[in-house]
This record gives sequence, C-alpha cells and structure tokens, in this order.
Amino acid sequence: MTLCTRKNRKGFAVFIAASVLVFASLNSTLTAQNAGRRPSFPQTTSESFDAAAVPAYSGSHSKAYAYIDANLAAHTANLQRWVRQRSISAQNDGVQQMAAMLRDDLKALGFKEAEVVPTTGHPGVWGYYDAGAAKTLAVYMMYDVQPVEPTGWNVSAFDGAIVDHPLGKVLMARGATNQKGPERAFLNAVEAIIKSGEGMPVNLMVLAEGEEELGSPHYPELIEKFKDRLKTASGVLFPMNGQGGDGSVGMTLGVKGIVYFELEARGNERGGPKTAEVHGSLKAITDSPAWRLTQALASLTSPDGNTIMVDGYYSPIRKPSQEEERLVNGMMSSWATREAMMRQGLGVDRWVDGLTGRDTIMRYLFDTTLNINGMWSGYTGPGVKTILPHIATAKIDSRLVPNQTPDEALRLIRAHLDKHGFSDIIIRKISGYPPAQTSVEAPLVRSMIGTYRKYGFTPSVAPRLAGSAPYYVFTDTLKLPLVAGGLGHGSGAHAPNEYMVIEPKSGSKVAGLADTEKFYVDMLFSLAAAR
Amino acid sequence: MTLCTRKNRKGFAVFIAASVLVFASLNSTLTAQNAGRRPSFPQTTSESFDAAAVPAYSGSHSKAYAYIDANLAAHTANLQRWVRQRSISAQNDGVQQMAAMLRDDLKALGFKEAEVVPTTGHPGVWGYYDAGAAKTLAVYMMYDVQPVEPTGWNVSAFDGAIVDHPLGKVLMARGATNQKGPERAFLNAVEAIIKSGEGMPVNLMVLAEGEEELGSPHYPELIEKFKDRLKTASGVLFPMNGQGGDGSVGMTLGVKGIVYFELEARGNERGGPKTAEVHGSLKAITDSPAWRLTQALASLTSPDGNTIMVDGYYSPIRKPSQEEERLVNGMMSSWATREAMMRQGLGVDRWVDGLTGRDTIMRYLFDTTLNINGMWSGYTGPGVKTILPHIATAKIDSRLVPNQTPDEALRLIRAHLDKHGFSDIIIRKISGYPPAQTSVEAPLVRSMIGTYRKYGFTPSVAPRLAGSAPYYVFTDTLKLPLVAGGLGHGSGAHAPNEYMVIEPKSGSKVAGLADTEKFYVDMLFSLAAAR
Repeated sequence: MTLCTRKNRKGFAVFIAASVLVFASLNSTLTAQNAGRRPSFPQTTSESFDAAAVPAYSGSHSKAYAYIDANLAAHTANLQRWVRQRSISAQNDGVQQMAAMLRDDLKALGFKEAEVVPTTGHPGVWGYYDAGAAKTLAVYMMYDVQPVEPTGWNVSAFDGAIVDHPLGKVLMARGATNQKGPERAFLNAVEAIIKSGEGMPVNLMVLAEGEEELGSPHYPELIEKFKDRLKTASGVLFPMNGQGGDGSVGMTLGVKGIVYFELEARGNERGGPKTAEVHGSLKAITDSPAWRLTQALASLTSPDGNTIMVDGYYSPIRKPSQEEERLVNGMMSSWATREAMMRQGLGVDRWVDGLTGRDTIMRYLFDTTLNINGMWSGYTGPGVKTILPHIATAKIDSRLVPNQTPDEALRLIRAHLDKHGFSDIIIRKISGYPPAQTSVEAPLVRSMIGTYRKYGFTPSVAPRLAGSAPYYVFTDTLKLPLVAGGLGHGSGAHAPNEYMVIEPKSGSKVAGLADTEKFYVDMLFSLAAAR
Repeated sequence: MTLCTRKNRKGFAVFIAASVLVFASLNSTLTAQNAGRRPSFPQTTSESFDAAAVPAYSGSHSKAYAYIDANLAAHTANLQRWVRQRSISAQNDGVQQMAAMLRDDLKALGFKEAEVVPTTGHPGVWGYYDAGAAKTLAVYMMYDVQPVEPTGWNVSAFDGAIVDHPLGKVLMARGATNQKGPERAFLNAVEAIIKSGEGMPVNLMVLAEGEEELGSPHYPELIEKFKDRLKTASGVLFPMNGQGGDGSVGMTLGVKGIVYFELEARGNERGGPKTAEVHGSLKAITDSPAWRLTQALASLTSPDGNTIMVDGYYSPIRKPSQEEERLVNGMMSSWATREAMMRQGLGVDRWVDGLTGRDTIMRYLFDTTLNINGMWSGYTGPGVKTILPHIATAKIDSRLVPNQTPDEALRLIRAHLDKHGFSDIIIRKISGYPPAQTSVEAPLVRSMIGTYRKYGFTPSVAPRLAGSAPYYVFTDTLKLPLVAGGLGHGSGAHAPNEYMVIEPKSGSKVAGLADTEKFYVDMLFSLAAAR
C-alpha cells in the first residue's frame, strides 16, 4: 500500500514504515468530548525513543552480496521488465499480464506455491517459499499502478528508461517507486540468497493485490482465503523505498483509518427540483439542493473548517500511549527541519492555528479529520449559466485514529445531520477501514531498525502516519506486526516522472539498487535471528 | 433577449412580454430590513387590472393579409433559411454569416440603412426603414443561438425540418422559437405591408446583437452608438412567441436585474495550500479552502437557503406600486392553473415555505434571490481520491428588483463576508445589470394588448418576469417603453427539439405562421394609431 503522504506531488520526504502490535489495551479515552471540543494531547513524559539504542545488525552474508554485485545489470533489467508491463488497475490495462508475470517470477525463484488468485475484482497473487525455516515472513505486495498523466512526462511512462537525474542514474517510469521498484528489488535479494547458496533464513508468504490504487477493495477477500496460513507468520513486510532525497530514513509504525463518503442534497417531495436543473430565477420560490448541501456541510465544522462540530466525534479518541509519547519526543530533534521541508514542498505557509513543533506532530498524527476532497453542483464552466441545480454532492473523508471506527463515525454524522434538520441529506459510504498500529518493540520493527543502523542510518520513528492504508487486515484480522521500509529512494508516485534511484551520485547518502538489495538480505537474516 | 423562464427544459408556459415606463417615482422603500428579515408584500388594494377592458384593435389590412396568405410557402422558407444558418455565439460558429444574412434581408426589404456593426465582441446589425411616418418603432433582435445538445434531437438541429408534432406541423431546429422564428415572422409581416402596397405606418429601427446567449456583454456598445437615433423612437418591440401550448397568452412588463459573480477560496499566506492540491491526510494540520468557501457561503443564507442573511440586502426593495398590485390581482384568476403547470413542468412538488396563491406570485416577482448556479472544488469523479484541494469556487447570481443595483448588492456581500471573518474570500463579478420595467399604460403595451384582443385573446399581464434581460438599456439608458410578444407558440429553447408551430392542428388556439404575421401587421398599425 502506498503510504499516502509519499504521494504528494512535491515528493517531500516523509518518514515511512510501520510495525505492529495493536494497542488493544489502550482503550482509555480522553475525557468525553462535546461537539467542537478538540482533543488535547498534553505531554506526560519527557522520555524519548532513541533508535540509536537499537544494536546495529552485525551479520554478514558475503555470498549473497557478491551475487548481487555480479548480477546488477540483470537485476536492474528485472525492475525495467516490471515497469514495462502496464498494470493500471483503474483502467484494467495490463492487470492480468502483470499478475501472471509476478506469479512466473515467484515460480522462477523456486516458490513451491505460486498462483494467480481470482477475486471479485482484479486477481491477487499468492506465493509460498518453503525454506524449511522455523520462521515465516509474510510479504505484502501491490502490483498495480496509477494511470499516467497525459502531460509532464520527460520519458514514455512505460519505457523503463534509465535517465540522468540530479540524484544519479534513475529508473523513470510509472511504478518505479510505487511500488514495483522496491518490490522487485526485494525479490532480487531473495534470488541472491537462494542462488548464491547463502540459504533462505525464513519461509516467505507473498500475497499481492492488483487493486491498491483503487483502495484495496478486495484485499480482505484474499486475506480471508489465506488467513490460516498467514497467521503462522511472524509478521508482515512491505518493501518500500524508505529514504528521502537527502538519504535520511523515516519509519512509521501505524496508519490512520479512513471513512470516505459522499454527502448529497437532491430535490425531493419537500421541495427543490426533483428531476433536472431549473432556471436560476426560480430560486425566488424554489428550494435549492446546492444551498442545502452547503448549509449541511457548514454545520459539520467551525467557521475555520478545522474543528468538527459533530456531537461525540472526538469522544472515542484515546490518549497517546507512553510509547507513542516517547516516539514523538524522539521525533522532535529533526522535526523543525522536516516541518519546514513539508511546508515548502506543499506550498503551505502556515499550519492551522499557527501550530508549531510538538503541537503540529500531535495534531497531525493523533487527531481525526473531516476533509472535503471534492464538491460539485450545477454549472462549473466559464462565464454565465443561470440554473438552479437539482443535485449537489461532496466527497468527504475522515481520517480515523484509535478507537474510531468507520461505521460509528458515519453514525455520528448521520445523527448530527438529523439533529440539525438535515435529515434530507443523503450519506453514501464509499469505503472505510479502521486504523492500524505496530509496537516499536516488535522484533520485526527492531530488525528493520537494526539493519538501518548497520548501513549507518538512525531512522526517525513516528508512531503513525497521518495517511491511511488498510493494514488492519494484518494488525487486526491476522494479529500480525507489520513493517514497511527498506533502503532506497524514489519519488513522483501518482505524478509525472516517477523515479527510483539505481546508481546514486558519488557522495550521496541515498542507496543504489545494490545496497537496497543487500539491505533486504540483511533484514531477512536479522529477522530470522530475532528472539 | 430570451426571457429566461421560457428556457426551462420542460417548456412550461410562462406569460411573457414587457412594456416599459420606469417606475422612477416609486422609490419608497420597505421599512428598513435587517439581515434575515425578508420583505413582506401585504395586499393594499383589491382593484384588478383587466386586460379585457382594453379595446380590441379594430383596423383591418386586407392587402397585407392577402399577401401573407399568398406567400406563406416563401415565408416559411425564410424561417428555414434563417435556422439553417448556424450562429452559435459561444462557439463563434456562423456568427458573421448570420449577421450578413440579416443585413441582406433588411436591404432586400427596402431598409435605407442596413449594416453589420463591429463591436469588441460579435458584431451587431443596424437597420433603418424610413416610412416617412410620424412614429418610429425600435426593434430589438438577437441573431445568435445556443450550442446544440449532443443527444436528444429527433432531427438534425440545423436542417430546418418541418415535422409532425402533437400541436401540428412545426419547424424543429435550433433557433426555431429562440429567436429566429418569431423575428423572421415579424420581418415577413413587414415585407407583406411593404410589398402589398399597404404602406408602412411607422419607421423601423432594427438593432440586433449576436451575443444574447452570452449575456449581451456588448449590446450597450451598440446602444451607445445609435443612442441619439433610438431616443426618437416611441418604444421598443421584441418579437416573441407569446402563446403557451394551450394558446393562452401571457405578457410581462419588466424583468429583474441580475448580478452574477464567483466566490472563491484559495490557499494563501494565512494558510491552506497555495499552489496545488495536497494529500487529504494533511487536513489535520492544513486549512482547507473548500471548507472556507462552504462556511462563507453558508453565512449568506438561513439554513433552508431561502433567506439572505446579508445586512441591508433587502433594504432597498421598494413596496409594490398600486399598478403592480392591480396587475397581480388580475393574474390571480388563472394563477392556480399556471402554478400547477409550472410545478409539474419543473418537477417541483412544493415551493419554498409551502407558498401558495398570491404569496407565490409576490415572492416570485418582487423578491430578490441568492442562487448557487454551480460550485466545484477538487476531485469530482467516481470513487475515491484523497486530496485537500487548494481552490474552491461557487457561481452565484442574485436577481435584482427595484431599487437594487448590481454594485450595491456586491458591496453588501463584501461587507458581510468581511464582518463575518471571510475577508479572504474572493468576489469576482462576471456580469450584472439593473432591473427594467414598463407601465401597462404605455401606448405600446396597450397596442399589444388591443391586438391580442382582436385575435380573441385576453392576456394575463404580469408586472415583471422573475428572469432577467438587459432591457435597462432601453428603459433606463434610452427611457423607452419596451414590449415583448406576439402570437405564435414554440418551446424547447436551450434544449433538444426546439420548435415553433407553423400550421397548428385544427381546433388549436395556437396561431400558425400566417396569423402570427397578421398579428404583427395589426400591431404595427395599432401602434401608429395610438395617441
């Protein structure tokens, strides 16, 4: 799953990763919140999590490293082969072929099981590599990509071109970093371990989907099908380029949930045009769905749009745990720089309420949201058209933090609308899932941190990403920890000129493909050795 | 100018016409209105205007009638020739050719002056016919048409086909009723008077524009150019099919003004993304222009969207005059039927506040409005896209009644937004003009009513149309009365299968082309004879 803040067009560096252990016991809620009473997050500890205190992984796997160095051209060609295979899920373009390519690659690596798995949507791919090991690692993959922007590309998006870039030689293509590049780099590492005679230290269960860019609507079907097998794994890895353009490494240990829905006003038996727009002059005697939607929306927030006025909406939000607070405290040393980079990358001069420092982190990671993704009604072209539209719609999402749930969030919004006289407003749920979280103490997370440390990086570890991904299928359904990360850098996900660095400029801290693969080798062995 | 309520896709019958004499003396305002205090329109007289009290025109012009009957095929062909000439102003398609066709037609009729007049937009056409008469009639024309809907047409929109219709044989084409049909029918009548030797009773000044469907942005330029000539006219005629599908005739004596503008919220130095959308998860710490616009909009009206909450917005609205009240009382006898037809045609089950009877008329014709024509922000496609848009826009119009003005209306809205903390909201004026009105006592209006009476119709006369047209250029700039009307029926303006009846079914009260033309002959003579 693409971690959402990575997808901003400015490509600002966001510390990414995850690790799981559900905070099931952390159900103490904040004091009951009334409408318009934001949660507050006072600091209760000055202790900090320090990633530098995690011992660096000390193993060495020279056969695998040598195999990688000797086969780098072929490994690069593997990434090119993957990005050249179109797999645009939204347009059903190349999806079946890409699923088959992934299955065939797993077979070629020696996976005992490798199959395309039908769903009610695009198919998944299942693979099982039996190393005869004590531990099993589940690997989440996505094989689909976003549609290609019609303009702005310097190369053809499916050519798999290696081009010169300020950061070095990069693979520039749709899917280069989101997500084919790091995923195939991980499989290159697996190949190196197997083919070099190093010997795989863990069994692997790969479960890939072709609908991540559609919001993973059928991934739960796949999970359900392999649930009993997956539950035997030690945890879940999502291979991902974890470095920013400056080489810095960030990890996140959880994601917010989301509920995405539409609010709609239409003419009905109580008033307004029922079947089609009418002339604008009729406003004098005709109810307007566009005004109704506007008023209903406005009732949901404070005038600045930043406080949710829905009774009880903030109530379930629990206090940050001590571990979360320690992680936040640990983020503070590099936060001012990151925050400034974010604002510059996003074109935002000032956060809400002029937030700075720790307050920004807390609001960003621990607070829920209500966001208008889009709204539309009537005539939206140039100039003048005088109509009273019969329908008005808004696309809203709310990011959910523990212990919010999609259905309860919608229930509260429905109750609010009814209470304020907007029972005519239609709520249409589109998708939703709960948040997910992994503890920084999970062996999988400590293995990842320790491997970063071996390569000279001390990751900034965030308790959560402000974005969303349906990791609950791992953390809640399977009760497995999840970690997302790896060395390597790319940017431009969901944008023109998406790239992944293959060969960095001399002096850069960004890993090239060879180091990215060696990192995955070490990480697998580190996990196998973890208590 | 197309009178707007005629353009509703359901083509419900609205009594149309106009007549002028500015109510300059009627500047008594309602008691000062505070925000949210709607104007009320209590009944102060039970007297009614009765169109049946206007004597029927008694003249007869047999040479012209005979000419019309003898040349009906050629006259029909004139209408077909006009609609076959594309003249889509919004797409600059055929506009020059249509202007030239009109000019050439005027020349062929014997107009001493006939010229295409450049403006900074599409050209106008000026024509002067010197009958050596004491009186001069100005004729407003529009020669442009709306774009053609891609689907829904039973015939090709520019074929000029004569087809069978429940009402009889009709000309079905873009422009058939809006406005080429009635305009060319009027010129056929002029031809009949001239060529039959009947002798034109009035001089004619034709001033046509090719931008009515764009909101007449450059018509004031044309008026300015011919102002001194036009001021010598007795009044202005706008040829228009004045009958409903049941044959009933309606007239309106004025129009509301309008101010059309956009409200826009954008990220700026105070917060929100300035240059592009950002990821939706950033709502937690980022101001949202979409919420800002929503809140600003919502502040403008009551929760039902029907009362304007802007301080002073209702204040300039004057009381209905005694003449207006008499006209409203006169409308009451047929109002229940018209109202039911309107609601059915529009697909509206219930007017605002459950209005009925006189209250509906008063609100419809005497109250101002604030209407959302369209609004948009961010992602408006199917499914899920998680963004925080950097810009949100709404298209708003306000219909203006005496003594509101476009600039004062915008000034009040600006002051309201500033007062309520929305000084960041941009107001972008697109167009605007004041209302216009003609007295029912104007000789031009009485001639129109008297001519209807000769043909057996007693028009329902409304003091005003709820829609808008820039008739102020005639009533205010030129101080001329204006009347819009004529016999004949058409529908489907701005919609597929636009038509005008050429040969009605036997027993129908709708006039065919021949009677439509004879009506214009009589109307011209009636006006010439008026004191």
